[in-house]
Order: sequence, then structure tokens, then C-alpha cells
Amino acid sequence: MSQQEPLRDIAHLGHIELLTPKPVESLWYFTELLGMESVHQEGQSVYLRGFGDNASTTLKLTEAEKPGVGHVAWRVISPQALERRAEAIEKTGLGTGWTNGDFGHGRTYQFRDPDGHKLEIYYDEDRYEAPPEKRSTLKNLPMKYPGHGIGVRRTDHLAMLCENVGPNREFVQENLGLQLREQVLFQDGEFEVGSWMSSTAVHHEMAYVADVKGLSGRLHHVSFWVDNREDVLRAADILMENGIEIEAGPSRHNNSQAFYLYSFEPGGNRIEVYTSGFLVFAPDWKPVIWNEEERGTGVYWGAALPDSFLNYATPDPDTHGVEAPSSDVPRVDPL
Amino acid sequence: MSQQEPLRDIAHLGHIELLTPKPVESLWYFTELLGMESVHQEGQSVYLRGFGDNASTTLKLTEAEKPGVGHVAWRVISPQALERRAEAIEKTGLGTGWTNGDFGHGRTYQFRDPDGHKLEIYYDEDRYEAPPEKRSTLKNLPMKYPGHGIGVRRTDHLAMLCENVGPNREFVQENLGLQLREQVLFQDGEFEVGSWMSSTAVHHEMAYVADVKGLSGRLHHVSFWVDNREDVLRAADILMENGIEIEAGPSRHNNSQAFYLYSFEPGGNRIEVYTSGFLVFAPDWKPVIWNEEERGTGVYWGAALPDSFLNYATPDPDTHGVEAPSSDVPRVDPL
Amino acid sequence: MSQQEPLRDIAHLGHIELLTPKPVESLWYFTELLGMESVHQEGQSVYLRGFGDNASTTLKLTEAEKPGVGHVAWRVISPQALERRAEAIEKTGLGTGWTNGDFGHGRTYQFRDPDGHKLEIYYDEDRYEAPPEKRSTLKNLPMKYPGHGIGVRRTDHLAMLCENVGPNREFVQENLGLQLREQVLFQDGEFEVGSWMSSTAVHHEMAYVADVKGLSGRLHHVSFWVDNREDVLRAADILMENGIEIEAGPSRHNNSQAFYLYSFEPGGNRIEVYTSGFLVFAPDWKPVIWNEEERGTGVYWGAALPDSFLNYATPDPDTHGVEAPSSDVPRVDPL
Amino acid sequence: MSQQEPLRDIAHLGHIELLTPKPVESLWYFTELLGMESVHQEGQSVYLRGFGDNASTTLKLTEAEKPGVGHVAWRVISPQALERRAEAIEKTGLGTGWTNGDFGHGRTYQFRDPDGHKLEIYYDEDRYEAPPEKRSTLKNLPMKYPGHGIGVRRTDHLAMLCENVGPNREFVQENLGLQLREQVLFQDGEFEVGSWMSSTAVHHEMAYVADVKGLSGRLHHVSFWVDNREDVLRAADILMENGIEIEAGPSRHNNSQAFYLYSFEPGGNRIEVYTSGFLVFAPDWKPVIWNEEERGTGVYWGAALPDSFLNYATPDPDTHGVEAPSSDVPRVDPL
Repeated sequence: MSQQEPLRDIAHLGHIELLTPKPVESLWYFTELLGMESVHQEGQSVYLRGFGDNASTTLKLTEAEKPGVGHVAWRVISPQALERRAEAIEKTGLGTGWTNGDFGHGRTYQFRDPDGHKLEIYYDEDRYEAPPEKRSTLKNLPMKYPGHGIGVRRTDHLAMLCENVGPNREFVQENLGLQLREQVLFQDGEFEVGSWMSSTAVHHEMAYVADVKGLSGRLHHVSFWVDNREDVLRAADILMENGIEIEAGPSRHNNSQAFYLYSFEPGGNRIEVYTSGFLVFAPDWKPVIWNEEERGTGVYWGAALPDSFLNYATPDPDTHGVEAPSSDVPRVDPL
Repeated sequence: MSQQEPLRDIAHLGHIELLTPKPVESLWYFTELLGMESVHQEGQSVYLRGFGDNASTTLKLTEAEKPGVGHVAWRVISPQALERRAEAIEKTGLGTGWTNGDFGHGRTYQFRDPDGHKLEIYYDEDRYEAPPEKRSTLKNLPMKYPGHGIGVRRTDHLAMLCENVGPNREFVQENLGLQLREQVLFQDGEFEVGSWMSSTAVHHEMAYVADVKGLSGRLHHVSFWVDNREDVLRAADILMENGIEIEAGPSRHNNSQAFYLYSFEPGGNRIEVYTSGFLVFAPDWKPVIWNEEERGTGVYWGAALPDSFLNYATPDPDTHGVEAPSSDVPRVDPL
Repeated sequence: MSQQEPLRDIAHLGHIELLTPKPVESLWYFTELLGMESVHQEGQSVYLRGFGDNASTTLKLTEAEKPGVGHVAWRVISPQALERRAEAIEKTGLGTGWTNGDFGHGRTYQFRDPDGHKLEIYYDEDRYEAPPEKRSTLKNLPMKYPGHGIGVRRTDHLAMLCENVGPNREFVQENLGLQLREQVLFQDGEFEVGSWMSSTAVHHEMAYVADVKGLSGRLHHVSFWVDNREDVLRAADILMENGIEIEAGPSRHNNSQAFYLYSFEPGGNRIEVYTSGFLVFAPDWKPVIWNEEERGTGVYWGAALPDSFLNYATPDPDTHGVEAPSSDVPRVDPL
Repeated sequence: MSQQEPLRDIAHLGHIELLTPKPVESLWYFTELLGMESVHQEGQSVYLRGFGDNASTTLKLTEAEKPGVGHVAWRVISPQALERRAEAIEKTGLGTGWTNGDFGHGRTYQFRDPDGHKLEIYYDEDRYEAPPEKRSTLKNLPMKYPGHGIGVRRTDHLAMLCENVGPNREFVQENLGLQLREQVLFQDGEFEVGSWMSSTAVHHEMAYVADVKGLSGRLHHVSFWVDNREDVLRAADILMENGIEIEAGPSRHNNSQAFYLYSFEPGGNRIEVYTSGFLVFAPDWKPVIWNEEERGTGVYWGAALPDSFLNYATPDPDTHGVEAPSSDVPRVDPL
């Protein structure tokens, strides 16, 4: 009875493209408040990085009519793995073809998940080389720890909404080998509210969560890592002092055990400052399933998440003019 | 020019056996001070776990004449990977054969590294199931967070001394696929002082460091993870209040960027309480090399590590009666 | 125009008596969860202390039919100050006379505030002398840092409800010399929702807050100090793992800037685990006044406090059978 | 037997003047690294403040030939107290007379301690009023929390060296009413190594420590408060990344229990970033005395302070050309 071996072709979540209708204000938020570094500008896009990112860039900020996620890129472990994954995805009929890459990375295969989010995979990536004035005194730190702002170390994960979680989860499990870590299942397991997945020891690099408005291709949040819970507490002060409303936190999730803080960047996207949580190493990890009762408010210490957390995503039909289909999907509580 | 693909058969460092001539006092240190849980006792061994360990046990504490490391076990990603690795190791001539496993894990292949440390690989492992009174209110936490002691979450890594680092590093790179993260190379790269390696995104799960006394099979330290730097600071108070001398820290390493605290458990082994540091995701990570000047004191913030840190390991010839060969190996500074 | 000099006869908040209908469970909460030490038992009372309290005891836990505050004791700076304060209070007609003291302190003058809470002043106090097994390795720490529970360092402050804040505030300002630090004034300053006062550099040792139910003599909460915000976060985990519901926090107050966590001890009293905030040194400190709009939710980072925080105090008429008078007092938001 | 009442005329340590031969570089250190605010410039001086200081300024940085302390100012509790203290000091013969004050404070009485350090007392002080762009969203915070640098909240304390500690300690006890908190006494109490004193609940606002070089009027360090130990750890990174050598810490003192980090500002003065420690409320506090053995290294967790900590102060005879008298004073270990 030969058990199938786990697919280990994906190395890690590579980078994310975020869309914003207010590029100047959004850039201010990411550089002055989060403390990220702008490394390149091209067309309507600015390329950003956290001080601890190994790659030259992990966040692409692109001017657009409406906020939301542009695309999500995964790095594979080898050139061979790139071919293998492209071939497999091609067979699903969701592939959209090869490109020569973008600033910071090489040849790339692009595709969509069943919900329509744009994804891509690539292997070749430029390692960041700091100019002399930005070199850290720590030889293993890609660039100097910034003396201003929140100081996010790196891009961590994102959560995307989709009309129907199941097919999207299965798609990335089968084609990217993402491992399932936790799930929220309501109605005796009939309704898949959300699924959290990863290609590394990190608890989750991506989550799919049911879209309460029954829309497709939307973004719930993008998350940036800081090293300590005190950094998250300090981040709350910095956001408040700069007129950025805090949506939720700082507090502790039950799912993932992580410490979170949610706010909105000026373009309208929800951004999380995030740390702690737990790593998963077991190759036979048993996904943790939460039902209605166990899930509670999604907050370990009991404070409820606000309604906006359940109802708002980008682009938002009310705010950004997306047409909202009628929907009888129950309210969900994404992480 | 087909580049070889990375070997990804090892899932993670599985468990460690620690030897102690003072089993009662050592057990007190690990349960009352570190806050670990004793889950099983058999023969001269007690099996321990941190509250966040997925496996039923990750530390085996065995009574012995002298302190040191008993064996180090690695978990593979699949039954097939177990066969592959065993076969490859068999060919090196360092295999010592199969066993039916031990408490908490199944069929196991045993071998030695060139320096003589006992290693093993296995796949089948018992997941921890907490008895009702120890169940956490967090569904994804294997057991209740302990209300006493330091509260280490899990076994993290270890550092072993060896007469000659190079062959041992190459052995685990080639046969286990451990990835090289950082190295200390002195004398224009001629002398390999230490190498830090991992099979996961964790910075290092194992280090080999040159034995200043030219001995074989010795242990520098075993390290346990806590979630926050404040936990490390609190650990220092708990150790002091319980008459355990602190050897070094709390402070920050340059290598690994991690926050450390070293003390000696009553059996004589050096134990680290550890957190922070950085994760490595890049499949083409460029190992960071430190020379004499860059390495400095091994402490980012400048405080020097004490002489004992360089000269003492277990078993120690002076303290525990091991014969010390004459040695002209230069003094090294292991992490 | 000779300005009146500030009254500086009170040294600090001395100790608090807390009433509980569940003495065994309450004692468990204070010793096992908060990590306080029981130093004496007499009649229906247990005398407790935090590891950093200079006095032998600062919390008296007394069995009673209903929860609430028994009495609040202030230490004066000298025997002469004791006579001066007693004489002044005697003149207000609210004095109830001298006693020979209680466990841990000497001759005491007792009185009531206008709202009926029992207060007392004293000078002679027993310094704590730890038995050998509880001596700290820090010579300036009264007893060993506890290795279990939350580890509150000392009793910090309390908030009491009263039908009418103004007269009570004026009473302690005039007779005890408490300095006013912050106030919440609604309705263009007509309605004094709450006033925070202190005799030391500590932000507040006592607050008077308007009782939304129009009752007298009730307690809003008693607060215990921990040294770090991480201790508060850790406290939240310990409470959750022990089945104690968290009412609010961990989060940051706007008033006082302090970091808080509220839960209910089994007897029904609201208990705060508390740290940070700011010290006040200026002899001409200008009290900070918050109106309806500025006060917001009372939480700096935006999360609202739950209804219970506004409506529940001890004893509670619904829960503990106190008769509730009709009241048209507006809802208030005490700290 | 009428016991004398404690003198409570001093409100708090008011401000400190620091001398620097490198005014530009020193200003960079205090504003860019510590995150202090420059509020005024006059003559050769810049006036600085921490974001939480109630006064308009608490640090005066003055260009001078050599580094060191210019003067130390104490605020009294009332105009009457100013007269009382001036009168008492006048009688000691160490008074130097009245001035009309300086930027930020009014009429001032100046004097010297027996060792020759310049001290002064005053009552009238300007409260800081932030310009609109620097107003905090916290109504009780004098100015916006700075988004850059270490972010020290306020000036905390200083330690001054003197040829002979005893007479200086007695002078400020008798004339300012400073309360003695801790002492290091060597040689069976014959040699007063250092004394730590305060006028508030803060552990110490000023320390006198024996000058190992037998000089007069020198400064050991000035200390600035941050709110959390994590701020101190973060400060260490910021200092390192900006080429400022860390002399000692982050670690924990035994005396005061505080968490410290020492570095040198470019002008040569030793600066401490400081938090935690304990407050003292007892009017009959029993000073804690440490002898040679108990004092140990002055560090609770065991790491020794470097030689420079014992031997260097400002101005330094070797570095700054002060004539060093021959001295047989034993080596001391100041906090």
C-alpha cells in the first residue's frame, strides 16, 4: 500500500502585488509607517521590501482604479520544479502562459485559481544587495534595521476571499502542494468557511476564505511580519499617531495563535502587522478543524472582531463600485 | 547543464537524548524550571515534551555515568524517504542498522556521523494526545500552557562538537540534505570553526563546531524555544531564584540573530533558552560566512561570551574524567 | 497672594480588603493564578501579598455574603501626619474612630467617604521578612519571584463607584491631599463621570466613578501591577487556560495610557492585571479632562469595552441581591 | 519622643545640563538616535525633551571644551518650599545665589554640592504645549510619540562621581530631603562606594559614586526612560546600526532591579537607556546595603560590567586632559 509522497516543489510565497487607487498615500503608509524600503519604480508600480527580506522585493504596489490584489507569486525550489508545476497547472486549463518575469525575478508561469485570482510561479530571483549606506552591521541581515516606523521584517502571508473555498483549496493543494494547517467548517462540516495553508514551516502563507458577498477575486488582507509582540503594540501607537484607524487588535487569534493588528492602508486594503504564532514541522500534520462553537469570535482572549472584518474586502462593492451579486452565503469569520 | 535538485527527505529534527549523571536533579530542572512535561518513564530514561511539541516526546533524559548527548533523531517526510535515506547512509559505511523504535516513534535506522555522534532517522511518530486535565483551551495547542516555570514551547536545536567539522557537515548535507545557513571560517577559510544547518525554514536545527580539546562525540548545548524575548528575560530571573548559574545572556547572537540564555542543568549539560532569530526560505540561500574579525565575540551587542563557553562541553575531561588528547586546535567560538 | 501649599501627608495606598462569597475559589485565583502569597489567616480573612510588596500584606480577602470592597487603607508619612489627618477628618463628621490595627499594621483611624466606602489611615506597618526558603537572590526584592502564575508584583490601585463623584473626590482631595490626575466630564462639564487621583508619582491609586445604577459603596475593580506588557499578555493565556473569562483587554487605556486586562475572580469582583502608564511628578500638574467625544471608548487603540464593564460592579443588585434604586444617571465609562 | 518628619519640599529632578565638545554630533545622537525633540536654541545650548516630559525641556546640551555635567536642577513643590530650601542651603555656605532662570523655568537658586557639582532649585516651569503638527492623539501625552529612533519618554536620573560620597549624600539628604534607597558599602561599611537617592517614588533620581581617580565634579552617566524592556533591546539594535558602541547591556542591574543599556554619545558622555526597576513608597524604607560579596558584578544575571564602566567618567583625564591626582581610592562599581 504505497502512500503518496508529499509534493515539495514550492519553496515559499514569493511576492504579492497590491493595487491601490491612492498610490502616493499608500506608498507613504508602507514606507513611513510600516518602515518598508522602496527599491524600484517602473510604470505605475513601486517595488518594496522589508529589511529582512532576502529577495530584492516582495511587495509590488501598483496604481489601479480599485484596491485589491494584483497577483500572488510563489517561488519553486529548482528550475526542474518550475517545469513540473507549470506542466501540471497547464493540464488544469487554468494556465495563462509564460512571461520573462518582472523586476526582481525571472521566467514566470502565470495562471489563475478557480476563483480568478492571478497566481504565478518562478525560480530565478535577485537577492538583495544593499548599497553601502544601507548595509547592516549584522552580516546576515540584508539591510540595516530601519530607525523609523514600525519596522516590518518581511512580507508574511495573505488571505484571499473566494465564492467557494473548496475548489480553490484543492487546486493549490494538488498543484502547488500547499499543506493544509487549519480550517473553519460550519454546518457540520458542510460549509467550508476558510482554509489556511503553507508550503513551509510557517503556519500559513495563504488562506482562502468564503466571500460573504459571493464575489470573486477579492482580497481580505496582506500581512507583514514583525519580530516581537511589543513591535505590534508599538505599531498600534504609530498608526494612531498618524491618523490611521485600527480595525482590530492588537490581540491574539485562536486559529494560528498569532498576535495581530489590522488597519487599512490609504488605498483601502486591509493590512496586518503580525508576529508569533506557531511553526508546523510534522509531515503528517493533522489539520485543526474549528466548528461554529469552537471558532467563537476568532480571538483567543475573547474580544470580538468588528463587523467590518467580516463584511469588508477589496475591492468593496459599496465603496469601490463593484457589482454585488445577490448572495445567500452565511456570514463568516475569516482570520 | 542540469542543476541537481535539493534533497528534501528530512522533515525536521525529531528528538534528542540527553545523558545525565544526576537524573533526579536534571528532571527537576527540566520540569520545574523549564516547565516541560514528563510523559513516560522506562528503564533509566524519562521522556519529556514542551507544551507546543506536536510529538508525544522530543527529549529523552537518560541516566548515565557522564553527561552528553545520547543520540539525535531526525524525522523523514515519508516511509519512502526513510528507505531512501537508510539506503544512502548504508553505503557510507556508517550505518549501524534498524531498530523497532522507542517510546513515541516507530521503525528507525541508526547510524553515526564521522565524529561518532549517534544519529537516527524514522517516520512513524505518535502525536501527543493530552489527557482531559491537560487539554488547552486553544484547539491547536497540543497541551495547556503551563502556569509554572519558564514554559518552553518545544525542543529547538542542538550544537555538537567534533574534531573536524568539514567531514561531518558534508556527511549530513549529502545524506540528510541539511542546508547550510551560516559558517565561521578562520585562517582565510582554512579552518572551519563551525557550521549551522537545517532541514526546515528554522535557521538551524543542528550545528557542528570544532572541539577545542580535539575530542569526539561531545555536546555543546541543547536549545529550547520560548515565544518571546521577555520569556527569556523572565527565564533568567527564574534560573537565578533557583540557584542555577547563568553562563551567558540574555543577549543577542550575531550569527542567527537569535536571543539566547545559557545555563547548566544539574547533570552538567549546557542548556539554551532561545527565541527570535530569522527564518530562511530561499532555495538558493547563500551561506553567510564570518571570519575572525567579523565574528567578533559572537554577540551582536558586544558583550563577550565567557571562557567556559569556548572550553566546556559534555562530557568534559576535567570534570567528568574523559581523557583529553593533546590538541593544537585553535580556540573557537561556537554559537 | 500666598498660594496654599500642597498637602503631602499621605505616603501611599496601603492595603485593600476585598469581600468574597467564595473564599476558597477566590484564594485559588489570587494565589494560583495571580501568583500572590498567603501570609496569614485569621477569622474569616486571609492576608495576601505580591512578591514586590514592601509591607507584609496589602490585600485582605474576607469571606462575606456578597462581593465588594471591605475597606481601603492609606499609609501616612509620619506619626504626626496620622494625628493631623485624623483630626481633620474628625471635623468632617465622617470619622468612625480609632482601632489598634490589624495584622500587619498598627494604630488606625477609620472613617467613611461621603458615599459610604470604609477608609482608614495608619502609619505603623510591618515590613515583610521572608522566611529563608522564600528569600530572593536579589537583596532588594522582599521575596523570591514566584515561578508560577501571573506573578503580580504588588497591589496597585482601585476604582470605586459612587452615586455622586464630586463630593467624594473633594473629600479625599481636602482630607487626604490626593492629587487629581484625570477626569471624565460629560454634558459640558456638568456631569462628573470619573476622577482619578493619587498621593504619589503613580498615575492613580484610586478612582471614583459614577455608579450607573445609582447605588452607594460599590467597587468597580482592584488592580495589580506586573512589570511588563508581556506579563499581561501571558496573564491572558493563564486566565484562559484556567477557565477564567476575560472581560476586556489586553489593550491600552487612553486615560492613564496603561495596559490592562480585566477578569472576574470567582467571588465576582473585577480584577485588573496592569502595567505601564505614566508617572506624574509636576506639583502643578494640570488635570487632563476628557469630554464625551474625546473619551471615545476609553481604549486608545479603538476596541470598545463591553457593556458589563459599564454595568457591573460589586455587589451587583441582579447577581447578589442588592436592591437597586431607580436611577436616571447616564451610562458611564469608568477606567 | 517626637520623631522628625520627612522633608518633602522637592517635587522631582527637573532638568540636567550636559556639556559636549561635539555639539553637532551630540545633537544628532539625542534627536536621531534617542528620538528626543529639540525645542529651543540659545547661545551655545540646545534645549531638548522626551515625548513624555511634562516640562518644555529637561535636557540642556551645551557646547564646551570638555564633556561632563553642567548643572543639575531640582524642582520644588511650591514657591514657599523654594524659599525654605534656599534659606537652608544658604546657611551651609555652598549657595551661589539667585538667577532669573533660563529657557523653560523661572527664578532659580544656585549652589554647589561639597564635591563642586553645580545644582539649582526652582519652582516656576513652563509646561510643554505642542504645536498642532506634534499634538498626540492621546490627550494626556504632551506630544506625539516619535516614529523614529529609540523614543525615550523622559529624562530619568543621573549618577555623579565625587571624591568622597558621604558628605555629598548627607548634603542632599539634609538640604533637599532626598531619600536614601540603596548603598554599596565596602570594607565593613567603612568605604561608601555609592548611594542612590530620590525625592519621589522613582527608585533613584540621583546617585553619588566614589570617583576611582579621586577627582571632583565628574559625571558617570545620564539616564533616559523608555517604557518597555523591548524598547531597550530595540535601542541596542539602533545604536549598533548607527555605529555607536555599546558599553554594557542590555541586562539587569541587581541594585534597582532596572534594565539598562549604556553607550557613549559622540561628545563622550555615558548615556543610559533605562526602564523597569521598582518604585519605593514606604516612608520608613530601609535602605538596602550591598557589601563586596553581595554586590558581585552589579549585574543580576551575572555578566560583568567592563573596566571602562569603572574607570571612565566625564571629563576623563586621559581623554580630555584633566589633571589626575594620585589616588589610592579602591576600584568601585557604580550603577
